Amino acid sequence: MAKDKKKKVDTGETKKKKAKIKPLKREIERLRAQLVAVSEKVPAKQPVISPLAPEAGFPALPVIEGAEFAAAEAGVRYKGRLDVMLARLAPGTAVAGVFTRSATRSAPVLDCEAKIAAKPAPKQGAAILVNSGNSNAFTGAAGAEAVSALCTAAAAASGVPETRVFTASTGVIGEPLPHERISAVLGDLAARLSPEALPLAARAIMTTDTFPKGATATVEIDGQQIRIAGIAKGSGMIAPDMATMLVYIFTDAKIGQPLLQKMLGKLTDETFNCITVDGDTSTSDTLIVAATGKSKVPEITDLRSSAGRAFQEALKGVMLDLAHQVVKDGEGATKFVEVAVTGAASPADARKVAMAIANSPLVKTAVAGEDPNWGRIVMAIGKSGARADRDLISIRFGDILVAEKGWVAENYAEEVGAAYMKREELAIRVDLGLGKGAATVWTCDFTKRYIEINADYRS
Amino acid sequence: MAKDKKKKVDTGETKKKKAKIKPLKREIERLRAQLVAVSEKVPAKQPVISPLAPEAGFPALPVIEGAEFAAAEAGVRYKGRLDVMLARLAPGTAVAGVFTRSATRSAPVLDCEAKIAAKPAPKQGAAILVNSGNSNAFTGAAGAEAVSALCTAAAAASGVPETRVFTASTGVIGEPLPHERISAVLGDLAARLSPEALPLAARAIMTTDTFPKGATATVEIDGQQIRIAGIAKGSGMIAPDMATMLVYIFTDAKIGQPLLQKMLGKLTDETFNCITVDGDTSTSDTLIVAATGKSKVPEITDLRSSAGRAFQEALKGVMLDLAHQVVKDGEGATKFVEVAVTGAASPADARKVAMAIANSPLVKTAVAGEDPNWGRIVMAIGKSGARADRDLISIRFGDILVAEKGWVAENYAEEVGAAYMKREELAIRVDLGLGKGAATVWTCDFTKRYIEINADYRS
Repeated sequence: MAKDKKKKVDTGETKKKKAKIKPLKREIERLRAQLVAVSEKVPAKQPVISPLAPEAGFPALPVIEGAEFAAAEAGVRYKGRLDVMLARLAPGTAVAGVFTRSATRSAPVLDCEAKIAAKPAPKQGAAILVNSGNSNAFTGAAGAEAVSALCTAAAAASGVPETRVFTASTGVIGEPLPHERISAVLGDLAARLSPEALPLAARAIMTTDTFPKGATATVEIDGQQIRIAGIAKGSGMIAPDMATMLVYIFTDAKIGQPLLQKMLGKLTDETFNCITVDGDTSTSDTLIVAATGKSKVPEITDLRSSAGRAFQEALKGVMLDLAHQVVKDGEGATKFVEVAVTGAASPADARKVAMAIANSPLVKTAVAGEDPNWGRIVMAIGKSGARADRDLISIRFGDILVAEKGWVAENYAEEVGAAYMKREELAIRVDLGLGKGAATVWTCDFTKRYIEINADYRS
Repeated sequence: MAKDKKKKVDTGETKKKKAKIKPLKREIERLRAQLVAVSEKVPAKQPVISPLAPEAGFPALPVIEGAEFAAAEAGVRYKGRLDVMLARLAPGTAVAGVFTRSATRSAPVLDCEAKIAAKPAPKQGAAILVNSGNSNAFTGAAGAEAVSALCTAAAAASGVPETRVFTASTGVIGEPLPHERISAVLGDLAARLSPEALPLAARAIMTTDTFPKGATATVEIDGQQIRIAGIAKGSGMIAPDMATMLVYIFTDAKIGQPLLQKMLGKLTDETFNCITVDGDTSTSDTLIVAATGKSKVPEITDLRSSAGRAFQEALKGVMLDLAHQVVKDGEGATKFVEVAVTGAASPADARKVAMAIANSPLVKTAVAGEDPNWGRIVMAIGKSGARADRDLISIRFGDILVAEKGWVAENYAEEVGAAYMKREELAIRVDLGLGKGAATVWTCDFTKRYIEINADYRS
């Protein structure tokens, strides 16, 4: 009975099926066409690693005698990723630092500034403790208390005085730092310190960086070497916001703290202060250079000596390399842009013009769209506040003369500019024709991915 | 035979159909699911008109006695759209103007500036001629020649002296203005001048504005009226770039040119100079107020008189209304944001902080993402360069106290902030707790659509 019924029903269905077969096929066809049409509207996926990341990957960093490193998973914000690094530096290490000038800078920055300003003689060792996941910024009195607790714990774990512990925190603003999670791993970190672990430290300070950043240089003086190895993290976001740069550079150079600090200030102006991703300034930017003095090269006491010049040049190279890597990992970046301004009435004017171009959303979106839109460069020059005379300005894309004498250049062809803009690394060169002021800055383009990272995904 | 064959084939197919019916249905199901999944990844379509456009549409503008208007299709860049407007103003009209401070401002701006600076007595009539499609900026000597040719032609067509013709151009930078196309329609424009045609003029000056912008006010003094009617265009792009604001306001008030100019400068600082879409400054920004003097209200000779105060207040209202409409039609805008700063050490500091917040890409993307990301506001305050003390800052979303005393406010709940951010019009309020400096500015959010408009579409 049940069987019969089933059969009967089946027969009925088969009849219907016959009638339905064509509509079904048409529906499949329609759906497939629709799927193709809709799929074309889906934005292309962003590569997991920035397209501008160094092709050679993370560089082989030399061991810096007197410097040891360890990284750990403390679960500051997320589980299962390195988020704390500890560096221990031997007695005799000179520590210099520069920090964000933000009026709302974080508790660790305020602490580091005070310690660097005190210029303690480097008789004893030093330690650097950095966490990602929480910036400990705008956290009231609790922020300073967390820094103090961490310095005490790190000093005990690594056997250095508290006045020589330099901390940094990067991540969400305004949430209390769960410092006890960091303290809990300090013993383990201290036990695992190794001169080889700097690449792990580079990973531990990352937030949404898409690749770890390292750079190195070696200076040879009279057959002896000074080694430099640095790491950095760039603009990224954990949640809900973060655009912090942290840079740590280690060297075995023998150099007094005041001289190292002086050199660092000057070189920062020529490197890290010449990059911009979005013109927004972090509350936590920190750059520290530690010189252990273990190199056999005699102490550098004069920056104009040949050893002084060679060391300074090498340090600048490492800083510039790391600065460029930060730009190349700018949120959503697909192009690396050098903006070089010459002929300004003063160096300050040159910098104003270069930064106006490098920070202009209209210029940066044109670069993203591979549009040789020199009119927007004219606009940015005009708004910069620097002295400019329309008829003396010349604009070049690389070596291509685009505009001069107040108008488009006679021999410029739009398709030549358009072809140039397809490159991954671009140079925008402006001469103001007024004086000798010059400045070069570096930036990246401004893509939909930047908006996605900062607007679409809440964490 | 053919029929048989067909039947046979059909039979074979029917058998196959039976076997295939379930896979077909599964395929449909699979395709539908896939379509839903893929569709969710497609970015929402941007409405043709800004979601922030006034619900009431373009306002009913009163006739301003002594002012006539006409608009025409001159084909400056595109065919089939109004792209030129002419206004003719009766003898006795006082004309005041303020212009972009860009160092690379356009040829028409330079010409207008010189004419306004000469403060000609308004005995004779005046004309305003505006084209969209080409900004005549960075066009060398040819730019000035085009302005001169247009002034001559417009003077002849409208019967006013050349020194009283004020032109403006908005559109692509760096391309020669085809001024002969504009001259060719001047006779027709002059013949069709009408006091009713101001709404057409509002359309003719649009570039990629998504709606025409108008505002009006009437002041009643001792039973007589002063009427004010204004139009504006905002940030848009034709090709390859444009971010120009043009504003024309007409009134029948009787007022001397020097007094009108003085009032205009002051009111501009409180209105149009307090808005920002992307921080980029146009080469063509132009704001002109023309007072025909036809009102029966006696001449305004003192801004502190009750009539002077009433007129100034009404003019400010029209200017602020138009300024807000420009922001509401900002490229890609979905939110209108008021940033109000109080308690600054000086008014200049208050403005610095307000503009740093209003121009911060990180703040603006957070607003786009409806993210109550007050940490980014702290960051923007910090980078502004204004005096600030972390522990004295308070931050509010509307009336919701978010942060104070250097940390998140005790009673603030993230979900309350998140609910507030869903509004279309938002207020970010910052008190610095230092002094009496205050400033309010207006901006919009920063969306993927902005990038699309400025990067994806080449024209």
